Amino acid sequence: MAQAPTREDKFSFGLWTVGWQANDMFGPASRAPLDPVEAVHRLSDLGAWGITFHDDDLIPFGSADAERARHLKRFQGALDETGLVVPMVTTNLFSHPVFKDGGLTSNDRDVRRYALRKVLRNLDLAAELGASTFVLWGGREGSETDASKDVHAALDRYREGIDFLAQYVIDQGYGLRLALEPKPNEPRGDILLPTIGHALAFISTLDNHEIVGVNPEVGHEQMAGLNIVHGIGQALWQGKLFHIDLNGQRGPRFDQDLVFGHGDVLSSFFLVDLLEHGGYDGPRHFDYKPLRTENMDGVWASAEANMASYLLFAERARAFRADPEVQAALDAALVPELATPTLNEGETAADLLADRSAFEDFDPDKAAERGYGFIRLSQLALEHLTGAR
Amino acid sequence: MAQAPTREDKFSFGLWTVGWQANDMFGPASRAPLDPVEAVHRLSDLGAWGITFHDDDLIPFGSADAERARHLKRFQGALDETGLVVPMVTTNLFSHPVFKDGGLTSNDRDVRRYALRKVLRNLDLAAELGASTFVLWGGREGSETDASKDVHAALDRYREGIDFLAQYVIDQGYGLRLALEPKPNEPRGDILLPTIGHALAFISTLDNHEIVGVNPEVGHEQMAGLNIVHGIGQALWQGKLFHIDLNGQRGPRFDQDLVFGHGDVLSSFFLVDLLEHGGYDGPRHFDYKPLRTENMDGVWASAEANMASYLLFAERARAFRADPEVQAALDAALVPELATPTLNEGETAADLLADRSAFEDFDPDKAAERGYGFIRLSQLALEHLTGAR
Amino acid sequence: MAQAPTREDKFSFGLWTVGWQANDMFGPASRAPLDPVEAVHRLSDLGAWGITFHDDDLIPFGSADAERARHLKRFQGALDETGLVVPMVTTNLFSHPVFKDGGLTSNDRDVRRYALRKVLRNLDLAAELGASTFVLWGGREGSETDASKDVHAALDRYREGIDFLAQYVIDQGYGLRLALEPKPNEPRGDILLPTIGHALAFISTLDNHEIVGVNPEVGHEQMAGLNIVHGIGQALWQGKLFHIDLNGQRGPRFDQDLVFGHGDVLSSFFLVDLLEHGGYDGPRHFDYKPLRTENMDGVWASAEANMASYLLFAERARAFRADPEVQAALDAALVPELATPTLNEGETAADLLADRSAFEDFDPDKAAERGYGFIRLSQLALEHLTGAR
Amino acid sequence: MAQAPTREDKFSFGLWTVGWQANDMFGPASRAPLDPVEAVHRLSDLGAWGITFHDDDLIPFGSADAERARHLKRFQGALDETGLVVPMVTTNLFSHPVFKDGGLTSNDRDVRRYALRKVLRNLDLAAELGASTFVLWGGREGSETDASKDVHAALDRYREGIDFLAQYVIDQGYGLRLALEPKPNEPRGDILLPTIGHALAFISTLDNHEIVGVNPEVGHEQMAGLNIVHGIGQALWQGKLFHIDLNGQRGPRFDQDLVFGHGDVLSSFFLVDLLEHGGYDGPRHFDYKPLRTENMDGVWASAEANMASYLLFAERARAFRADPEVQAALDAALVPELATPTLNEGETAADLLADRSAFEDFDPDKAAERGYGFIRLSQLALEHLTGAR
Repeated sequence: MAQAPTREDKFSFGLWTVGWQANDMFGPASRAPLDPVEAVHRLSDLGAWGITFHDDDLIPFGSADAERARHLKRFQGALDETGLVVPMVTTNLFSHPVFKDGGLTSNDRDVRRYALRKVLRNLDLAAELGASTFVLWGGREGSETDASKDVHAALDRYREGIDFLAQYVIDQGYGLRLALEPKPNEPRGDILLPTIGHALAFISTLDNHEIVGVNPEVGHEQMAGLNIVHGIGQALWQGKLFHIDLNGQRGPRFDQDLVFGHGDVLSSFFLVDLLEHGGYDGPRHFDYKPLRTENMDGVWASAEANMASYLLFAERARAFRADPEVQAALDAALVPELATPTLNEGETAADLLADRSAFEDFDPDKAAERGYGFIRLSQLALEHLTGAR
Repeated sequence: MAQAPTREDKFSFGLWTVGWQANDMFGPASRAPLDPVEAVHRLSDLGAWGITFHDDDLIPFGSADAERARHLKRFQGALDETGLVVPMVTTNLFSHPVFKDGGLTSNDRDVRRYALRKVLRNLDLAAELGASTFVLWGGREGSETDASKDVHAALDRYREGIDFLAQYVIDQGYGLRLALEPKPNEPRGDILLPTIGHALAFISTLDNHEIVGVNPEVGHEQMAGLNIVHGIGQALWQGKLFHIDLNGQRGPRFDQDLVFGHGDVLSSFFLVDLLEHGGYDGPRHFDYKPLRTENMDGVWASAEANMASYLLFAERARAFRADPEVQAALDAALVPELATPTLNEGETAADLLADRSAFEDFDPDKAAERGYGFIRLSQLALEHLTGAR
Repeated sequence: MAQAPTREDKFSFGLWTVGWQANDMFGPASRAPLDPVEAVHRLSDLGAWGITFHDDDLIPFGSADAERARHLKRFQGALDETGLVVPMVTTNLFSHPVFKDGGLTSNDRDVRRYALRKVLRNLDLAAELGASTFVLWGGREGSETDASKDVHAALDRYREGIDFLAQYVIDQGYGLRLALEPKPNEPRGDILLPTIGHALAFISTLDNHEIVGVNPEVGHEQMAGLNIVHGIGQALWQGKLFHIDLNGQRGPRFDQDLVFGHGDVLSSFFLVDLLEHGGYDGPRHFDYKPLRTENMDGVWASAEANMASYLLFAERARAFRADPEVQAALDAALVPELATPTLNEGETAADLLADRSAFEDFDPDKAAERGYGFIRLSQLALEHLTGAR
Repeated sequence: MAQAPTREDKFSFGLWTVGWQANDMFGPASRAPLDPVEAVHRLSDLGAWGITFHDDDLIPFGSADAERARHLKRFQGALDETGLVVPMVTTNLFSHPVFKDGGLTSNDRDVRRYALRKVLRNLDLAAELGASTFVLWGGREGSETDASKDVHAALDRYREGIDFLAQYVIDQGYGLRLALEPKPNEPRGDILLPTIGHALAFISTLDNHEIVGVNPEVGHEQMAGLNIVHGIGQALWQGKLFHIDLNGQRGPRFDQDLVFGHGDVLSSFFLVDLLEHGGYDGPRHFDYKPLRTENMDGVWASAEANMASYLLFAERARAFRADPEVQAALDAALVPELATPTLNEGETAADLLADRSAFEDFDPDKAAERGYGFIRLSQLALEHLTGAR
């Protein structure tokens, strides 16, 4: 069995995860509401380090100021008692029907202005609670028919909105970074910025691109059949992995939000390997939904399961990397050689053209005989993952 | 019936499309080789404007210089006779077994150097033939197991390679632009830069990003279940749609390369609408495979079908845009309003916060009562598409 | 524009479709409840022929007998006033949390017994209202982890349940037929009897298989990437297409329930062609969800759109079949020849083995030269679909 | 490390697997041909029990009789030397261009007759070699446009063909059983009998259904996003799992044919659990493709990997089933209770209606409070799979 989680593991949970009442498209709630204060205490007891929330999770939409203050005070009290931190806050621009055509890209300008105001207020709260990351998931920014959304204008508005919010953060000296969360579809037929790639590309066009990155969710990329390790790898490579949502998904279908490790096990293993050894030191944040079949005992068991899976994969990944046979197989597969630049230092096109060994004297048929041994590597990974080595 | 294609329509075809001999994973060729010279003449007769090719399509891999020259001369002769142009040339870094682990990101440095040399040679040829776009599809740049590919290093090498090639183009004064072609998988289990988004994000990191854009293929994005109109929309918005591959696909499955219009008809319609009215004036390039069930008559019928479909959708899209009922429905859906900035000119956060109409006096419940009429728009589009209006 | 729908078109709607309040996984209701009586009147005005419902749509779950009678009386009154019929009734074994692990295959035997009782009661109602089909969608019969469900036992229980219910129908002389509705996933991770094929196979094992068939939903098959025309074709071929749910879907993703014709247009066209010319004379039932962006005006527009799309495709399909060029292309493609048995009448294996023309004298290379002209057929279909012929 | 495979494990391989030369849609062969005699010896050395083949794998298409005999003799010699058996033979009705529109359902009747003759000949061979199963994969039986294939006629012809072949087997006293292999698509756009379910349903209509079952391939079902454990469970439940093709796939995309265990690991684990404990005692047959990146060393390593993965999962599954904590969790989840019939012995509808505890006195809200503990079960499975327990 894997070791117990500690604060050093930086595990955090969305309040909306353990607090999900299990209402879905085909049925109403099957669990009672969870008091945020209880969530803080229980998660703390289980070894979590942080808790996150949407504005509307903690403070019911439309609460009066006094009620709002009361909710916040109770919550802050629980944080103080437990030492749990709030590393990230996010905003809900998708539940209230006013956002049914989106928040920052709604066709309705009044809705867009209202959305900006809602976020501004929530940015103040995030700063107040000491969060370092502010996530924006644009779940309703999209369309079902291409006739309904001018993509050019929508991206203009998206850029306008994000740049405006980022400028506010800068101007207020909040020290927050914004993280966009991509998703290909659901609840909209197609959502703008559907993948890590599209979000990164969009960010590159921002005036305030320095403080804007991504918060990819494992399952969201897998809904598009994409390799999450490749996606996170590119986000890291571009210096833009500001936060991550860990969970499980079984390929292109509805957003399952399974426990991390209960979806694609191989990808989960390699993802943890990357997070642990690829230069990410942010929160390990779980964004999942405890199955509707579970009662509250099952909810807490699911919270534990997420952390246990992560720690288990981390242990397996360490052993994988430390195994001399694996090292030898990586070498045989020339994996480390990819870190060597293709060109010699300072080599120009003229130099390369003059290098007969690169072309004229290179025998492609001969070179093609190499076997890379990728299946061997794959099997070594499976054997480590399954504890067979 | 739609009108006949003319040179003004800028239709171009890959030599490998009509020339595909219909060998696939489960069977050998079912059609005889097609002489490139015949391809030029036939496509010209059908109303095409351009022809494109991979180096290895036109000149068998490994040809000696004299043979190479002979192939080129015959081809150039056909171009001269017909007036067909070569708007784009591309390179093959995926067929020869030497590239089985990729070209620019192969773990084997010698292969990477060889790949650069192969592309340099082909860039010269592209310039010689007057092409304005050079496409790079990295079909073998990827992996089947995450253990086999260090994504960070791979993207470093990819960047090194593309920047090197772009610099060569600049230094030679070729006036070419490079266009990267994304694809999520096949033949590799997962391919790097799997979508338009990932490619655009990658390009934003290049030193020579000004002359590098994308060449999206309709079916490739649809293999990831993504909305091609959204994807092309983002590429246009970022000023990076340098070229496009039109074809048909029926969702996440193998790469079908159907005739354009024989896959997702609604998306094809809206894509043509976007290309015709969204500021793209490059080639309308077909990259498809005539079904294996067809003989050469069927091949030429398929070439015609691609162009006929495009022209038909263009006609339907024009009528759609011109219909006053459509205009009224777009207005009712507030589609044009999205072009209006969310903020007033010069409006600051302080200004917005002071605008009580944006938040304090805004009634979200009331605003949520609006019906956008998107289904009506969708139905109007269907009726125009089907010629029922 | 297509003609207006009439009762002869046999269009029916689920009460839960126009009545959907647009609450989804990410937001609450955006529309007010719809009175079933109003639904009957409005649908009748629009030209519909029938209305269908789940027990819980019409009569809130757990209603006392008197309240139940009152609901039914009002509804029956509306039917009488309008002439609308109730061709189908279905049951809800998926909304109430008691069914969170399924109804007929819940691990909990008490739940299974309760489910049977709930259905028995609803069968009485269906008979009382004159329905001829009773649909069972087992949306919660499934699992998220294979450890939780013994598939062998689950199928035993499923068979036990369906056979029991069918026997009740027979014993009561209700004249009803049962129709199972397959779906691959959502809300469960994986649902038992995930496709038309699995349901047909299951039915073949029933004692009372004669009165049990399928009610396929277009989008459900497309969520598995399957060809709906092939699936419906097989159901018809097996004499088991008892009912059909028409709607739209854009490939493997969440269950979109779009308006019919707003998903895969080509498949919709060929599906209508099959329904109109393939021997189906049951209801054309729409099971869709009006987009959350719409108000009630949009809801009624969406109801109209479903019928208009169907009639439009039917008109296009008739023209396609009647076109002599299409007939010639079908002949050239040998489509009608497939109706000729492969063997001569009474031909035995010995006879075939003795026929040298079938093998020894048959030249496969020569025969392989035939071009089937399938692309031409496909293009003719597109041109008819788009009204270009 | 798992134990070495033995003959008792009943591992078999297709000759076309280790013999695949790694030519794909985008490149030619990267490996030399493999002599079938060497394949037999090497597989035997690695611990395999059986070898299987298509007619055309062993004997090049169109070989003269003498050549055919020579090939067979050499192969038989190798079998005799090693003790390897031929438990299954299959036929190739998909490679030669004559089958480009299918074999048993080609629109061209002459092709259909030729296909029957080809299979008859191969049935004789299968019997001669002592095979007990004859697999038919109809990879070209399908269409790309619905206009090209009359599904009703196609299924008539499919039934005619399979019944004819089955009758021949019966008449000849061959003792063979036929097994149909479903696949949703590739190489055809859509293939008839796309899933296990559709094939089982089709079989139920056959005159000779007793000797016809299915040969499901793991990856083929996963290409449709279906749960392979559910699918195999249904095939076993219907007594129709005659053979199985084990491999790996990563969801809806091209047919990857990965090593077993290198795709969806959780499903592989539960599938082995089902095969080992669910009443299947046939061959464990691997139908995969060694990656194109591998040379022959990698090919043999891949053969070993398939068997090692299977044995590893089998060991983990045994430990899972034997763990008292797992047993307790299964009990808590009521998994065994599903084996208890829902009705009491002999209970009629009248009896059930009279049982007030089943409905009138049953409190669904109370019953809904149960937590099934499925996440706990899922986590226990993951911990066993990963050797953490």
